[in-house]
Amino acid sequence: MTSDPLRPAGRYHHGDLRHALLVAARALLEEGGPAALNLREIARRVGVSAPSAYHHFSGLEALTATLAEQGFAEWAAALDAASASGGMSAVGEAYVAFAVANPGLYRLMFGEGFHALSEASAAVRALRSRAKAGLRAALAVRVPEAEVETAVLFLWSLTHGLSLLLIDRQARADDDVRAVLRLAARGLPLAP
Amino acid sequence: MTSDPLRPAGRYHHGDLRHALLVAARALLEEGGPAALNLREIARRVGVSAPSAYHHFSGLEALTATLAEQGFAEWAAALDAASASGGMSAVGEAYVAFAVANPGLYRLMFGEGFHALSEASAAVRALRSRAKAGLRAALAVRVPEAEVETAVLFLWSLTHGLSLLLIDRQARADDDVRAVLRLAARGLPLAP
Repeated sequence: MTSDPLRPAGRYHHGDLRHALLVAARALLEEGGPAALNLREIARRVGVSAPSAYHHFSGLEALTATLAEQGFAEWAAALDAASASGGMSAVGEAYVAFAVANPGLYRLMFGEGFHALSEASAAVRALRSRAKAGLRAALAVRVPEAEVETAVLFLWSLTHGLSLLLIDRQARADDDVRAVLRLAARGLPLAP
Repeated sequence: MTSDPLRPAGRYHHGDLRHALLVAARALLEEGGPAALNLREIARRVGVSAPSAYHHFSGLEALTATLAEQGFAEWAAALDAASASGGMSAVGEAYVAFAVANPGLYRLMFGEGFHALSEASAAVRALRSRAKAGLRAALAVRVPEAEVETAVLFLWSLTHGLSLLLIDRQARADDDVRAVLRLAARGLPLAP
């Protein structure tokens, strides 16, 4: 993606410019996190005027929602692929690997802005619901029905927490995610 | 805490003003998270000029480090009390309860600004090290030596993730933290 500000806007076909704006937005998201997203800066990087960008996205919220939809689609595909090949530990590893590879996107999808995003995008809500239903189904054959919701929260807390500790470099990159998941499967004696 | 801008600065004794600034900063932190901290606004709320505030803190970084030190001291005390009364599950519950009761403070202590904070404050580094050493010691009697680091990361990921899901209202406040910790103790079968 060029960021040449002299690049003429007329060079883009409709779909191309939309795509170029999303690519530039994603790069900005990974550079500075969700707070760095700024429609004027995104337009500048693509080399078009802000009004040209507004032709494709009604505003930053709409562009952000589209980024999140892309993210949830990629995330769901990564988890599906892991599930097909390796079961739940592989899904857990794929979850953490996705977050570490896309920290800005992960913060956007599962960070503080979560509720605004859900409200802004029916597609985000649908992708999240589908993922959660898949997780519930996988857990329903492993724990009693009454414990499925607890198991969902347990696994999600573990992978979310591990992802953020790695993204924020509070845990080391060479920490063994697989070993943590093995421990989750075996249990850790916590009684006094 | 009054926020009357007409309140004369001379009314504060030295220690009082410092304390008042910290109380106002903590309220601001809980209202808007770490990004909302602003020395000028904190001074305004206490009813003193910004230079008066600079007399007590060299800048926002110093004030932020002091807030974090207070936070880590309170946090360590809460975990110690839980440990004395109820073992590791109680410590896990106390960890999550602290985060939910002090979401802004928790984000400051364990969020994206973690490294800057550690660099700014030797006291923060010491309090964190002490807490981690206590956790290691408690785990060393429960798992083989070679697994202690994995167990630390497992428990910390779980409680950190659960805390943030609750703070961000991605999990429900009535979700049963104790049930999640029981599951962590028992293990969740993850093999394909």
